[in-house]
Amino acid sequence: MAQKTTLKEFESIFPKLEELLLDHAKSYNLPQKQLDWYKQSLEVNAVGGKCNRGMSVPDSVSVLVGRPLTEEEYFQAATLGWMTELLQAFFLVSDDIMDSSITRRGKPCWYRQEGVGMVAINDAFMLEAAIYTLLKKLFRSHPRYVDFLELFHEVTFQTEMGQLCDLLTAPEDVVNLDNFSMDKYHFIVIYKTAYYSFYLPVALALLQLDIATPENLKQAEDILIPLGEYFQIQDDYLDNFGLPEHIGKIGTDIMDNKCSWLVNQALAIVTPEQRQILEENYGRKDKDKETVIKKLYDDLNLKQIYEDYEEKRVGEIRSLIDKIDESKGLKKEVFETFLNKIYKRSK
Amino acid sequence: MAQKTTLKEFESIFPKLEELLLDHAKSYNLPQKQLDWYKQSLEVNAVGGKCNRGMSVPDSVSVLVGRPLTEEEYFQAATLGWMTELLQAFFLVSDDIMDSSITRRGKPCWYRQEGVGMVAINDAFMLEAAIYTLLKKLFRSHPRYVDFLELFHEVTFQTEMGQLCDLLTAPEDVVNLDNFSMDKYHFIVIYKTAYYSFYLPVALALLQLDIATPENLKQAEDILIPLGEYFQIQDDYLDNFGLPEHIGKIGTDIMDNKCSWLVNQALAIVTPEQRQILEENYGRKDKDKETVIKKLYDDLNLKQIYEDYEEKRVGEIRSLIDKIDESKGLKKEVFETFLNKIYKRSK
Repeated sequence: MAQKTTLKEFESIFPKLEELLLDHAKSYNLPQKQLDWYKQSLEVNAVGGKCNRGMSVPDSVSVLVGRPLTEEEYFQAATLGWMTELLQAFFLVSDDIMDSSITRRGKPCWYRQEGVGMVAINDAFMLEAAIYTLLKKLFRSHPRYVDFLELFHEVTFQTEMGQLCDLLTAPEDVVNLDNFSMDKYHFIVIYKTAYYSFYLPVALALLQLDIATPENLKQAEDILIPLGEYFQIQDDYLDNFGLPEHIGKIGTDIMDNKCSWLVNQALAIVTPEQRQILEENYGRKDKDKETVIKKLYDDLNLKQIYEDYEEKRVGEIRSLIDKIDESKGLKKEVFETFLNKIYKRSK
Repeated sequence: MAQKTTLKEFESIFPKLEELLLDHAKSYNLPQKQLDWYKQSLEVNAVGGKCNRGMSVPDSVSVLVGRPLTEEEYFQAATLGWMTELLQAFFLVSDDIMDSSITRRGKPCWYRQEGVGMVAINDAFMLEAAIYTLLKKLFRSHPRYVDFLELFHEVTFQTEMGQLCDLLTAPEDVVNLDNFSMDKYHFIVIYKTAYYSFYLPVALALLQLDIATPENLKQAEDILIPLGEYFQIQDDYLDNFGLPEHIGKIGTDIMDNKCSWLVNQALAIVTPEQRQILEENYGRKDKDKETVIKKLYDDLNLKQIYEDYEEKRVGEIRSLIDKIDESKGLKKEVFETFLNKIYKRSK
């Protein structure tokens, strides 16, 4: 029987990785003040989230081997999980600057913390670099070492393409709803979120166990990308309809002119008069205009439309999972675990 | 006999690499507008510099084999050279944001160009990612593929540590000359510049020829790090004493509160009254205060002090080169070529 990891267990691994990273920096004689800064950046940016992505690596490995993990297996899997968290930290720190975000996990974004500012860009780079330091220190003799490196490179580039598409489709300062479309929305969501949040952890689990055959990776991708898309649509929904105390931030998609699932849904069903309201109020740094859009979303019944979408999509995903071929070591349960973690989440 | 590459020859390789990178992005269905953006970012940020770092890869390979390169060898070496230019582009685009720089290569910095802004952060990431895309496409079957990956990872991290030290030692907004010291200066210069500009190209050349023994790498490092330090000291000198039309930018080290060689030299020799002038005028975004510092640098005779330093240091480096052991394929001429490129440069 597989065993699900707890956040406490997962977080207990981090200090060992942090020590390796700081020792590595120390070996280059990085001065103490800079070491302290790096430590602080690691702790603030990589730790303190829900760690759903990271924990899904040991959870997936445990499901795949069908039993609780040994200490050594768990350490390996959790380390790979922490690398996905480091990758996410690299993206979040920099995305927050690019999006002029205000809060993250209920606290000011890193670049807005006292004395940080644009140094946060370099801190983001160092969070990314930490992945490869850990891979070299802990996985250099793993038979799939090169595949680990290439997987992180590819997923990083995919996420960057998604971010580029997002930034150019919905620049903060130029509002043009004609830019938006469900096609662009799908590209953004798949590349910016689904690959690193959903495909990456399972691909890492398959690599750790050396069962990452092209067939298994393809099956995982074919199910995890739709799952990731559903997750991001949910995220867009929560940005407006979720409670700040649940989601740990104040949603800013409307004011940030985001190409969100909600605005794309709205565009598909508005009357000409309502379209006019959207044109005049969406994407402005103005609380009153944001309130007008929130009212329109309510009038358009987007909450109900989302809930209907969720039921339908989850049904489809369940039927995709049913068709998984388990003959080469992959297991349906990996995907069921993912789905159960996110279905009807409020945060 | 070795053959030196020309900028024209080196630049003629870039379109082939660009095509590979754009085809790669296309294979993920990146939309046309985003492809055009990526192309523009590659061309503006990676091309148009002096390419001394990049060209030193084919130059070093040619010196090491002692003859002009075949077309295939040149393409490989120039590709590795372009990767060092991509790495530099990644750093320059982001450093310009972190330093609030105004111009780069005689044009506005990328983040200050029309419609770019903070998207430049993601563009910097994509420039970095391009290195690994090219390595995978063109060097995957090279016997030293993993070493190439690890070398780029390591040098990237070293440069980031150098940048962190620079940013924390000389924050733009907090002027405290007690923060500065020649020790910190050396750390910053070695990590922020010497590794990627000097060690990296030669290490790549050694790897391409599969003669990157630990001994050869160590010898290269022991000579290229002092050489790189000399180069950066020269750069600091030119920031103040060079001509903007030569160096392609307006120096801002004084106003940016940079931990420059010049200010460290000044601190070592000022009278208490002159120290007071430094305290009151260094690191302010104020043209008049900058002029006061420039006058002080002249009064302190820093131009002459630099020229004396240069003569002494170049003599030392020449004697280090003399002691190189050539028995394992390394050649003194590699280092002589480097030194000749930078000795008494005005740009």
